[in-house]
Amino acid sequence: GEKLKVLLIERTIEEQNFSDKKLPGSIIFEDEDLDEAAIRILNELTGLKNIYLSQFHSFGNPQRTKNMRDKNWLEKLTNMKIGRIVTVGYVALIKISRKIIFESENTAANWYDVSSLKSLRLAFDHNEIADTALEHIRHKVKSEPSMLFELLPQKFTMTQLRNLYDIIMGTTSDVRNFKKKIMQIEGLEQLDEVQKDVPYRAPRLYRFDKKVHKKNTRKLYS
Amino acid sequence: GEKLKVLLIERTIEEQNFSDKKLPGSIIFEDEDLDEAAIRILNELTGLKNIYLSQFHSFGNPQRTKNMRDKNWLEKLTNMKIGRIVTVGYVALIKISRKIIFESENTAANWYDVSSLKSLRLAFDHNEIADTALEHIRHKVKSEPSMLFELLPQKFTMTQLRNLYDIIMGTTSDVRNFKKKIMQIEGLEQLDEVQKDVPYRAPRLYRFDKKVHKKNTRKLYS
Repeated sequence: GEKLKVLLIERTIEEQNFSDKKLPGSIIFEDEDLDEAAIRILNELTGLKNIYLSQFHSFGNPQRTKNMRDKNWLEKLTNMKIGRIVTVGYVALIKISRKIIFESENTAANWYDVSSLKSLRLAFDHNEIADTALEHIRHKVKSEPSMLFELLPQKFTMTQLRNLYDIIMGTTSDVRNFKKKIMQIEGLEQLDEVQKDVPYRAPRLYRFDKKVHKKNTRKLYS
Repeated sequence: GEKLKVLLIERTIEEQNFSDKKLPGSIIFEDEDLDEAAIRILNELTGLKNIYLSQFHSFGNPQRTKNMRDKNWLEKLTNMKIGRIVTVGYVALIKISRKIIFESENTAANWYDVSSLKSLRLAFDHNEIADTALEHIRHKVKSEPSMLFELLPQKFTMTQLRNLYDIIMGTTSDVRNFKKKIMQIEGLEQLDEVQKDVPYRAPRLYRFDKKVHKKNTRKLYS
């Protein structure tokens, strides 16, 4: 079935006949704000536009450039002497169907299963950054499960919703408990329609009304 | 009654006979990690130790040092030429009874009502940082109200809990609705005891069992 994937960039160091992977990222310009730089860099590396990137954590351990391979690569790329590098991390959850320029003059990008991160040794401290990003996403989905609806079609089945949740959270939810609990989300409603063109008993469709959700969740205890 | 306050540092520029306020903060050392620096700086400015500081957002707009007063002050203080400054913001929610060194050789610190921030013009973009921090805290309390119990005594009344919630959130909760909803928190339990030494009908006491909470909230939909 479907899986949660992470977009990685191939890094090749030709002199050393070496290649590995890293998270998409680059150096900020002097006159740029942090958000601007994140949007520009993602676009340069993948062609992606209009993605809601959210800042989740900054990484500044002085040891993160201790690997001479990383340090030399960065110094050559930027033509600067590299001391400590602070990385401001941004994350976005997108549909895998989004159109991406995987190959360009300077870059090759690819989707990798999040579960494969354990066995990949990414450049710099990017394993740690990826783990922190995943933790951040799971925490956000848990505290605001309504964000899941951004990734679903307008009308969806309970199975689609549960699968999406389980894919992101790495869980296997109980069918009945999941439905009971998720239906507590304000604005999530069952429709009178069923899914069409399915070769078995057609499941009911649901939709999420953002306005109703906002109106009813503003004040938690009022 | 009690209020939510923010700890501000007095900044005095003697040559200009000028003084204003800023958030506690300073420059990171070259060999320090971000968390380390945050802990050290808070301790240097206030004597506070063993505070759980959590990183919430980084600020790096090139315009944030555009005010020449801020720029000159920082250049004099650090003896460095200042271009763009990236501030990594940390936040902690603490009891106001924590012992703080308000006056030291270089620093004067004071608690200010959060509601007074609107009328204070803080140094740099510290108004924006303070607003973002407050938003972060409110969002955290809303998604994990169990963090409130860190700020209460081991046994507390429902009124104490509701007042704490309302003080932080800036809300006025309905007494009955609040109790009904907050009691959904796993691990929050009513005791058979009542508050002692009160000159009126003694209210019931509650406690929060962290272990029960963790056990029962790990998997939301399993």
